[in-house]
Amino acid sequence: MTDTAPRRRGRPSRTHAGEGPAARERILQSAREEFSERGYDKTSVRSIAKGAGVDPALVHHYFGTKEQVFEAAIEVVFAPALKAPDTIIEGPLDGVGERFSRFLFGVWENPVTRTPLLAVVRSAMNNEAAAAVFRRLVTTQLLRRVAGHVGTPDAELRAELAAAQLVGVAMMRYVIKLEPLASADVEQIIARVAPVVQGHLTGP
Amino acid sequence: MTDTAPRRRGRPSRTHAGEGPAARERILQSAREEFSERGYDKTSVRSIAKGAGVDPALVHHYFGTKEQVFEAAIEVVFAPALKAPDTIIEGPLDGVGERFSRFLFGVWENPVTRTPLLAVVRSAMNNEAAAAVFRRLVTTQLLRRVAGHVGTPDAELRAELAAAQLVGVAMMRYVIKLEPLASADVEQIIARVAPVVQGHLTGP
Repeated sequence: MTDTAPRRRGRPSRTHAGEGPAARERILQSAREEFSERGYDKTSVRSIAKGAGVDPALVHHYFGTKEQVFEAAIEVVFAPALKAPDTIIEGPLDGVGERFSRFLFGVWENPVTRTPLLAVVRSAMNNEAAAAVFRRLVTTQLLRRVAGHVGTPDAELRAELAAAQLVGVAMMRYVIKLEPLASADVEQIIARVAPVVQGHLTGP
Repeated sequence: MTDTAPRRRGRPSRTHAGEGPAARERILQSAREEFSERGYDKTSVRSIAKGAGVDPALVHHYFGTKEQVFEAAIEVVFAPALKAPDTIIEGPLDGVGERFSRFLFGVWENPVTRTPLLAVVRSAMNNEAAAAVFRRLVTTQLLRRVAGHVGTPDAELRAELAAAQLVGVAMMRYVIKLEPLASADVEQIIARVAPVVQGHLTGP
């Protein structure tokens, strides 16, 4: 990676397909597939461009560096988990642990939304640039909303400890596949995890 | 990797250094360093052999496949976390959450024991063979001991949910480095996490 800043000015020298919104969308789609299947380290701007049928210069033109393509791509991947409806987060505080746990397990139990999400988490575990994107998105779009609703001075730490329980279970169940956790009924897990999330957010 | 079984019989055709316990120990040391620094995917039997100053055949001779070298190497890496003294796990049940949390954070707060341990967890997140080794070691050497002491029919699930909270916090604090969790005083974290671990293990 020699690119350190986005190049948004000028035209790419060659394109193998038309520019415009359709090409941009194809690049994002290719990026999501590449990052999901190969992880951050093994994905290159070149491979993303190839998957989208465009010149690598067009990827740089629209998005800048690999880290910036990653951010744009995973914002879409994360959307199902990040865009928790206001009713999930901002409903009555005394049911927030249950609503939040049920919402996230809903996203994870569906392989279509789970697979790319776990790929992103794995990328963030292995690469500092990917970790920075993960931090920024999860903090600004999800944890601060939760913390803002909780409203105590230590609410951000509380939200992170709750997230640690939920992400830890997801890793053990869907990635490491520890038994009996991997095969347990999701309702049994939610019944045990929701009170922990609630306790972290609103307990003593 | 074309090796599917250990080759323990016969002599390796060439060796660049003496065989015996010293060579075996050098191979293990090299394997620990390689796996810790580069992760499972990027480490090869060849690179381990090179680091130990021996022929790759000698690595196969002593350990078999790459997965088997990995298991032998990480058993040592995990030793500080797996070899929880009996007094930690088998003391009075009503303090086990506190003792267990304090013990693991002790291992993690020390960079010497933390770095290789997190490398192994990351490898397990990214590679099925590494995940299998992780599952086997953590389940047989740590979680079953805890579950056996708890003694209820659902004790294994309870131990895994407790471990999920602890591993989730470790990932968020030491790898993803989410703030304020990454900079929080470890005593503040233990104060919030220990009751959760206790609740998972012995709660209703």
